[in-house]
Amino acid sequence: MKIVCSKSKFSTAISIVLKAVSNKTTMPILECILIEAQGNKIKLTANDMELGIETYLDGEVIEPGRIALEAKLLSEIVRKLPDNNITIETDDTYQTMIRCEKSKFKISGKEGSDFTELPEIEKDKFITISQFTLKEVIRQTIFSTSDNENNILMTGELFEINEDKLKVVSLDGHRISIRNINLKENYGFNKVIVPGKTLSEISKILTGEIEDEVKIYFTSKHILFEFDQTRVLSRVLEGEYYKISQMLSSDYETKIDINKKEFLECIDRSTLLIKESDKKPIILNITSDNIELKINSTMGSLKEEVEIKKEGKDIMIGFNPRFLMDALKVIDDETISIYMVNPKAPCVIKDNKETYIYLILPVNFNI
Amino acid sequence: MKIVCSKSKFSTAISIVLKAVSNKTTMPILECILIEAQGNKIKLTANDMELGIETYLDGEVIEPGRIALEAKLLSEIVRKLPDNNITIETDDTYQTMIRCEKSKFKISGKEGSDFTELPEIEKDKFITISQFTLKEVIRQTIFSTSDNENNILMTGELFEINEDKLKVVSLDGHRISIRNINLKENYGFNKVIVPGKTLSEISKILTGEIEDEVKIYFTSKHILFEFDQTRVLSRVLEGEYYKISQMLSSDYETKIDINKKEFLECIDRSTLLIKESDKKPIILNITSDNIELKINSTMGSLKEEVEIKKEGKDIMIGFNPRFLMDALKVIDDETISIYMVNPKAPCVIKDNKETYIYLILPVNFNI
Repeated sequence: MKIVCSKSKFSTAISIVLKAVSNKTTMPILECILIEAQGNKIKLTANDMELGIETYLDGEVIEPGRIALEAKLLSEIVRKLPDNNITIETDDTYQTMIRCEKSKFKISGKEGSDFTELPEIEKDKFITISQFTLKEVIRQTIFSTSDNENNILMTGELFEINEDKLKVVSLDGHRISIRNINLKENYGFNKVIVPGKTLSEISKILTGEIEDEVKIYFTSKHILFEFDQTRVLSRVLEGEYYKISQMLSSDYETKIDINKKEFLECIDRSTLLIKESDKKPIILNITSDNIELKINSTMGSLKEEVEIKKEGKDIMIGFNPRFLMDALKVIDDETISIYMVNPKAPCVIKDNKETYIYLILPVNFNI
Repeated sequence: MKIVCSKSKFSTAISIVLKAVSNKTTMPILECILIEAQGNKIKLTANDMELGIETYLDGEVIEPGRIALEAKLLSEIVRKLPDNNITIETDDTYQTMIRCEKSKFKISGKEGSDFTELPEIEKDKFITISQFTLKEVIRQTIFSTSDNENNILMTGELFEINEDKLKVVSLDGHRISIRNINLKENYGFNKVIVPGKTLSEISKILTGEIEDEVKIYFTSKHILFEFDQTRVLSRVLEGEYYKISQMLSSDYETKIDINKKEFLECIDRSTLLIKESDKKPIILNITSDNIELKINSTMGSLKEEVEIKKEGKDIMIGFNPRFLMDALKVIDDETISIYMVNPKAPCVIKDNKETYIYLILPVNFNI
């Protein structure tokens, strides 16, 4: 194989596929990036058997072929080469010469045929959304996935398509995050549970531009994201996702409207007096037209007040401050509405159109 | 004590004195910042007994007094308060109320009189230089101080004043860094060894502006930096600094002129194939009009060439790549001159006026 391509394009392509390179593996081939040159196309692939990414880049193919190179070393070498054309040339023993200006690196490669390429999947079920929307919806829900592998379904997110609606759900046993998105077309019915790791890696690759689109294909085993010159293929989590509809009652005894920024900053300050190990809740005392927040700890005490608009009963309720902050941080609205029933029942933060619903379980407290 | 000041000014002042707060101490008072209010001045002080910093800020003193507050907690609280006026009020039991808008923190303070304030020192010997120059000279020399406490003098830097010249020297047994600076006035003769830690902390506080000045006072025990509203006092290291003049011979057998950026990038790439634990040198083969750099390791091989202008003999010489890179990174010249004698003798990188001199010992190598 012999190819010539620009350092910057090669570097970008490597950084994309690098997200699917295995860090901990006993199979050295999984630590490699496969370079394939055919026609006038150069393709890079990485695959850790859960997540696979391939991306194309432009370049000159002088001699077609393929080689697998150790991903980290390749990425470091390319990053430190001058900003000019790079020539990569392999010989029969998989020795690989990487040249740029007067630098000549020689490293050992592996036969490309040891590499597991991404399988082709059926492409009959799909949706199209903007990269911006996908990147945002991941950011707005990923924090409430669990990293406890014992509840494997909690490590993923539900993507549920219902005609022209996409619902994305994550939950970790203490809280549920739901985002509802309007699609431009009617795509029928479908649902799939996507591993959280796949979503967080893909959100790092997405440009996040509104005008850039991503096509998402679903099968019973896989989910495929296609965008720009890149394909990201992931296994899906198999099983039946949690029934959440029964947890989302619309009854409430207390509803408050509150300035989001003020509320968030005030909870943030309260965490200063709580050590992580304490697991002490913050207690909200909601009366006529304000929330009073009080913390007493060995480090000191804090009293805060935030003005609110209240409907219904007064209530005193305790929360893990981090759970409230995680939800508040990803809501863009200036004023938010919080619905409560009693100090033992979950509170719900949602907008009128239910584009977002954040449900958080309260915590017991002693006064 | 009762004071009112703006959050932003208070926050800036805390971040300045925080550099002298002790992290590891058995004396809780050393983890505190002392706040003193007198007249219409508010003074903050921190002192870990090696390094002490005090800074003044504007504010309203409603009731004069003093209090010592746990530095990290105070800093976190102030950072997270709204951007508005902060009121700090203490009672007879050193309970301290920190109020801002609707937030009311209450934390325990300590009696100010437990706190060791900065001693006054004699102010007859001093120099004045710009904050820019001081910040730069620290950056350009600090890397070759040693952190081995067994050679205590190597952990500091020599500041030597000779009429209108300031010479700053650091060395760690493998290399010497020297910077010569022209002062605006004649300040007589003086020399002092300043702890490296003091210099690295002070360089974080300096604005680095050319028009901002800093006055440096010297005594046999202390060095005092005065700038803006701030005083930084440090003990000096006692003892006789190393005689370096005999190591700086101006004889050479080989002199090369080389593009600094190209040379630096080429050494940087060579480190990719050397593991930190290897301690393998890079070998420079200097012939008629180029340097050839070759690395062979278990990870692969690299060959580089850089064009040079050479005077004198050909030479093959080995270096620790990090030592070369450290020096090259802080030299601003586009083209640099390197002087060598033989593969066992130190090389010297310097400009014609000797505003900088970097001496680096070579490393033995086998071909």
